[in-house]
Amino acid sequence: MSRDDAPAFFEGPPDGFRGGEDLGAPGSFPFTRGVYRSMYRGRLWTMRQYAGFGTAGETNARYRFLLERGTTGLSVAFDLPTQMGYDSDAAMAAGEVGRVGVAIDSIADMRTLLGGIDLGGISCSMTINATAPVLLALYTAVADETGVSRDRLRGTVQNDVLKEYVARGTYIYPVRPSLRLVSDLMAFAAAELPRWNAISVSGYHMREAGSTAAQEVAFTLSNGVEYVRRALARGIALEDFAPRISFFFAAHNDLFEEVAKFRAARRIWARVMKERFGASDRSCRLRFHTQTGGSTLTAQQPLNNVVRVTVQALAGVLGGTQSLHTNSYDEALALPGPAAAGLALRTQQILAAESGVAAWADPLGGSFLVEHLTDRVEADALTLMWRIEEMGGSPEAIDHMRDEIHRAAYRHQLAVEAGTRVVVGVNRHATGEPHEPPAGPDFGELEARQTAALAAFRKGRDPGAVAASLADVGAAARGDDNMLPVMIEAVKRGVTLGEISDALRSVWGTYDNPP
Amino acid sequence: MSRDDAPAFFEGPPDGFRGGEDLGAPGSFPFTRGVYRSMYRGRLWTMRQYAGFGTAGETNARYRFLLERGTTGLSVAFDLPTQMGYDSDAAMAAGEVGRVGVAIDSIADMRTLLGGIDLGGISCSMTINATAPVLLALYTAVADETGVSRDRLRGTVQNDVLKEYVARGTYIYPVRPSLRLVSDLMAFAAAELPRWNAISVSGYHMREAGSTAAQEVAFTLSNGVEYVRRALARGIALEDFAPRISFFFAAHNDLFEEVAKFRAARRIWARVMKERFGASDRSCRLRFHTQTGGSTLTAQQPLNNVVRVTVQALAGVLGGTQSLHTNSYDEALALPGPAAAGLALRTQQILAAESGVAAWADPLGGSFLVEHLTDRVEADALTLMWRIEEMGGSPEAIDHMRDEIHRAAYRHQLAVEAGTRVVVGVNRHATGEPHEPPAGPDFGELEARQTAALAAFRKGRDPGAVAASLADVGAAARGDDNMLPVMIEAVKRGVTLGEISDALRSVWGTYDNPP
Repeated sequence: MSRDDAPAFFEGPPDGFRGGEDLGAPGSFPFTRGVYRSMYRGRLWTMRQYAGFGTAGETNARYRFLLERGTTGLSVAFDLPTQMGYDSDAAMAAGEVGRVGVAIDSIADMRTLLGGIDLGGISCSMTINATAPVLLALYTAVADETGVSRDRLRGTVQNDVLKEYVARGTYIYPVRPSLRLVSDLMAFAAAELPRWNAISVSGYHMREAGSTAAQEVAFTLSNGVEYVRRALARGIALEDFAPRISFFFAAHNDLFEEVAKFRAARRIWARVMKERFGASDRSCRLRFHTQTGGSTLTAQQPLNNVVRVTVQALAGVLGGTQSLHTNSYDEALALPGPAAAGLALRTQQILAAESGVAAWADPLGGSFLVEHLTDRVEADALTLMWRIEEMGGSPEAIDHMRDEIHRAAYRHQLAVEAGTRVVVGVNRHATGEPHEPPAGPDFGELEARQTAALAAFRKGRDPGAVAASLADVGAAARGDDNMLPVMIEAVKRGVTLGEISDALRSVWGTYDNPP
Repeated sequence: MSRDDAPAFFEGPPDGFRGGEDLGAPGSFPFTRGVYRSMYRGRLWTMRQYAGFGTAGETNARYRFLLERGTTGLSVAFDLPTQMGYDSDAAMAAGEVGRVGVAIDSIADMRTLLGGIDLGGISCSMTINATAPVLLALYTAVADETGVSRDRLRGTVQNDVLKEYVARGTYIYPVRPSLRLVSDLMAFAAAELPRWNAISVSGYHMREAGSTAAQEVAFTLSNGVEYVRRALARGIALEDFAPRISFFFAAHNDLFEEVAKFRAARRIWARVMKERFGASDRSCRLRFHTQTGGSTLTAQQPLNNVVRVTVQALAGVLGGTQSLHTNSYDEALALPGPAAAGLALRTQQILAAESGVAAWADPLGGSFLVEHLTDRVEADALTLMWRIEEMGGSPEAIDHMRDEIHRAAYRHQLAVEAGTRVVVGVNRHATGEPHEPPAGPDFGELEARQTAALAAFRKGRDPGAVAASLADVGAAARGDDNMLPVMIEAVKRGVTLGEISDALRSVWGTYDNPP
């Protein structure tokens, strides 16, 4: 709701406001006020800083730096080749190795990435989608090797391929086999990894691509509904997977709209799960990770971003997030440096320990404004969700969602250009001071080092075992068995991520080039 | 209210909550929700950065820097000699000239300070108390010289001497003549400067000295009541001065308690003014300036202060402040440098233009938590105010207020030492990195420059006119006439701030050494 179509204040709650029924108490259906009764008094949100660059060794060093400074969860950024199913020595990987995240080709890289980190004691989130089963296989294989039992593993794989088609772009296979991989992973986690979040249904990238807050909620929850349907169709019992579905939203600048968004998302999800799927209360709780809005940061006057990130992080906390990534102020310029990454973490720690906000569950609950905004986001999102249902569900609505986001992004861009949407330091209060990116790592050198290590790794393998595993992967892809156990076996024998992905491409084709 | 004595959430409004009567609408009695109906949509808060150091020339340059970057009001910091009534060449001034603010000795300095600034177009706040009449005389004299009519002058002098005795320390004379000067200034402004705020009743320094939020409200409003009583006793009509009383509060870290504090202060003041003094609604509006909490900033990891200042500034805005100073992140180390001062201003601009919060009046109104906290701060403050009334009013309660603040500060310090009160980078997440202050200005050189200029200025005066003016000042001090016109005449003849103050000291003695 913009200021243009609303009064400057509300004198009371929304018309027809049903306090108890619409709000509940924190920890009670419909969870508008949060998924836990005592919220952060019981357990603080996880401070989970998304990080990764270069080789597994460099990234491991950054994780140790963050852990030493008090981060409480890991979050792995992978490079584009890893996300797209290419090894670092593939032609498609050239120039991209280790650039936007860490390069992971084989179990050797995963061992290095997790070196010295207690997998039984920390939770690890992996932002990975088309190749999520391979990365989870690698993670599980390293845990198996190091004697950490699978029921102790805690973490998340993003594994949300639908939003890749809509907004993020790192899809590989056509929609149908991609969704089958999602369900395979969910079934495997339900059976083997009871504390693992098998999916993180993500609105973040749609928001970053320019969606509105209501679109972010609607498209994310519509995708969530689709995953539930597919998992049920795959034969997984609702209560075996629904409580482990997690979500991932952005926190942008509009503080009260963002808080309202989180509250509306929880209420919609709870009602959909109960009314449509007959879920238990436990399965109705929408738990989510939040990341501050990378697209809102500016290369100009980069310290201004500390202010933006503080406001956005506060939106996540007041909205009841379960974990939070705060962006580094230098991200619009370069890979985050250690000082900026440290300050981003300190931002969370100050909100947690000094601002007093962590003492209260849903501190804005009852605010006339926030209840109005919550109702508004909810109503707008439900309208959008019904439209997607009418189209046959979100796999059928991929183009529609993409178009809607493009339209919203275009409107936003026009407003920035017209100056009606202010970006401080850009279209107002600009100073014209230069903003040169600092010198980054030598990615050419990193790539050479990574491909040399990969070549050495390949030489140490048993070629017969590799070939046999790849044949198994192909057979599983053609059949209907769960792919995960086959992949775990393969990576333990040294099969690489690129080799597995090539095998699947040869069976399924690709989204842009179906078989 | 600490988390220790409250539940993690509230399911509804406070017991006995009388929505309409306790809240009103924004712009309506009792102004709990703010003093203006459309709040920041109608007019944004004034971005008023407190600044001053060295000579009038240096400070004028900083003002131009800030104005160029979009600040919307001036706020003058004076050095200690100026605040204590000493010229820069006085023995008592040695080593302090230009250190914590600008050195102003004479009308020549005031001309330089305001050079190139349109006094009819900007509002100017001066943090000055014991010597407030002298500084207002200098300001008025420069306006007269430059042809800006007095009815166009907008601004504030702090002129709140009671809190100097309680917490801030820059008092000169005994309580009774000091209060007479306060009333003289209020009478002069009521008659001559219709747009000038003749007093800014200040809780800021008491809070910085360690008071609680409720003490800050109570002691400030008790002092405010005393000023109203004195002004009425001086014969000024209530409606001629009450609408121009302004207030000054701190914004510390505890976001919701701070917002509640501002709301409670407005409600208490409105009711006191109406019920005790029979004021019109217009005179019941508590308008206030906010400054973020300097004492909350840390020398360690100084960029952490950007986060704190953002949260605190947000508290001021959500609490409905009329003007705001955001501290620079380097203030715990040194005088603010231009980069830090610029970022502090950008913090306000981002909150105003990007966070969306300025679109709403009292956005937290109705929040169960915030209404509970508002009631709690109000009840605690009223208890403290009644105690002061029982003691005979705040001039009789100076020692009591000082003791209460010391006790609160001591409890706070114990909690920090015990680690139950967390300060990130200090008693948690400390890294031991060095935090060296940057090289500051050469204050010795500044002092030599200022005293040389003062000596030259003195040589250019008419000694007979100076002596006659000082005799007038002494006579007025012994009598009952308003001091302000006499002081304006004196400063126009070149009499210095130190000379006027010495003349008054010789009549009234000092607080620590009464006649």
